[in-house]
Amino acid sequence: MRDFSSDLRHLSINTATVRKQLGLAGIVEACARRGIGAICPWRDQVHAAGLSAIARQIADASITLSGYCRGGFFTAADAAGRRAALDDNRVAIDEARTLNAPCLVLVVGALPGALAGKPASSDIGLARAQVFDGIAATLDHAKSVGMPLAIEPLHPMQAAERACINTLEQALDICDALDPQQTGALGVALDVYHVWWDPKLEAQIARAGAKRLLAYHVCDWLIPTRDLLNDRGMMGDGIVQLRKIRGWVEAAGYTGPAEVEIFSEAWWSHPADEVLDTCIARYKTVV
Amino acid sequence: MRDFSSDLRHLSINTATVRKQLGLAGIVEACARRGIGAICPWRDQVHAAGLSAIARQIADASITLSGYCRGGFFTAADAAGRRAALDDNRVAIDEARTLNAPCLVLVVGALPGALAGKPASSDIGLARAQVFDGIAATLDHAKSVGMPLAIEPLHPMQAAERACINTLEQALDICDALDPQQTGALGVALDVYHVWWDPKLEAQIARAGAKRLLAYHVCDWLIPTRDLLNDRGMMGDGIVQLRKIRGWVEAAGYTGPAEVEIFSEAWWSHPADEVLDTCIARYKTVV
Repeated sequence: MRDFSSDLRHLSINTATVRKQLGLAGIVEACARRGIGAICPWRDQVHAAGLSAIARQIADASITLSGYCRGGFFTAADAAGRRAALDDNRVAIDEARTLNAPCLVLVVGALPGALAGKPASSDIGLARAQVFDGIAATLDHAKSVGMPLAIEPLHPMQAAERACINTLEQALDICDALDPQQTGALGVALDVYHVWWDPKLEAQIARAGAKRLLAYHVCDWLIPTRDLLNDRGMMGDGIVQLRKIRGWVEAAGYTGPAEVEIFSEAWWSHPADEVLDTCIARYKTVV
Repeated sequence: MRDFSSDLRHLSINTATVRKQLGLAGIVEACARRGIGAICPWRDQVHAAGLSAIARQIADASITLSGYCRGGFFTAADAAGRRAALDDNRVAIDEARTLNAPCLVLVVGALPGALAGKPASSDIGLARAQVFDGIAATLDHAKSVGMPLAIEPLHPMQAAERACINTLEQALDICDALDPQQTGALGVALDVYHVWWDPKLEAQIARAGAKRLLAYHVCDWLIPTRDLLNDRGMMGDGIVQLRKIRGWVEAAGYTGPAEVEIFSEAWWSHPADEVLDTCIARYKTVV
């Protein structure tokens, strides 16, 4: 396994981690100042900062991207909604190109309307079919501009509202169906928070291999977890076996960054400098 | 599929559903008065009511059991703790016999100490090995007295604290390893709340078949879900496709009751009569 203790080359900060404390320009500056190697910005933050301005700032700061968050949300109650989602994913791909991201992370969507509290359907099988079709349709444009798509399986507790792809095996089945040659155009974003519990995790990481493992995200699962979305833990504060999982990921050939992605009401209430310094300390000692 | 609209023969009430309103004797009386066919009592409620007294009341009321909740919790930080768990499971099996239960439901346990908020280990692989050994050891006594064990896969959001068996496939793999002849001594309790999200659910229900499907539990998944334990919904109030899943279960050969099991702070605050009458109405129309 790689040694993370001596420098920050392989550390990435998902910008949601300090999104309530700083704008994206401020996050880029704070990461660059610390020698953090990479970030993964969110679309709404990029739009707020201005795409070309932030692309220039990132390039000037010699920071790379570990991904772009996020495309997906392919499901909708009607055909017009699904077409709009495809159009939006094309824009996201083009933005990812402008930012020189290595992949566009896909949070694929789930029951239409559920995220807004009013599900228009309870048919998760139908949602999964729409997701499959949406990825297939998006893959054409992604390939044409050379932007890999990274399907992110989300924890089953988020299956109704955010993503109906909920295991690594399920994501890899889609990859195999749509990209059987393993061209590198389609893979997965593996977030320990979503998959740590999976009894098939080690085997499916080996199955994924370097060609499919496009991103690796870390945080921790707290005991107890008090909220289904915004109660992620800082690495080392929970029960995820981070070294063991990274061992599996690296044994499968992954050489990219470990991206810290923490949605946490608790950490959002701390100063950004303290959060980033804690991320660095934990990256060196427990990731 | 069976018609549930005209009588309550196949309805069971898991007694946790109204545990905060009534003692077990009161629950048995309220269910019998309504013509509800079965209950699934919890051990602490049975102990509070007195085992032989409650066994007599249940027999006199012509109510059957759909299961006995619950054995399991096999994991522990040391060998003495694991031995104590095995001893306690033997007692639970004997109680289940006295109550004439068709199976003992196993919530298998997870990281030792996590349920109390202080995990002594974060090794979920080790916990799974302890669970496997615990079920194997318990199965001998269960077979000797003719009490089937029903492994209940719990939702992955409860993998750290309550059960490290989290998919039907994982539970069935254990059944196949420990009871390859499908003798009926080992099977699963399938609760829609825990498994509705699983992309392999239909296939694994078919794999389970009548020999392994020992119990079927219903409630609903609410949008949004605000708590990881006590925010279950009444059938029809959420997004679980109850008719579709029951269709799969019955196609696999299951002929037992549909057991309503609702842990809900909201429903615990309603009068027991209202809760039970609502269970009956929803059983007839949406289960």
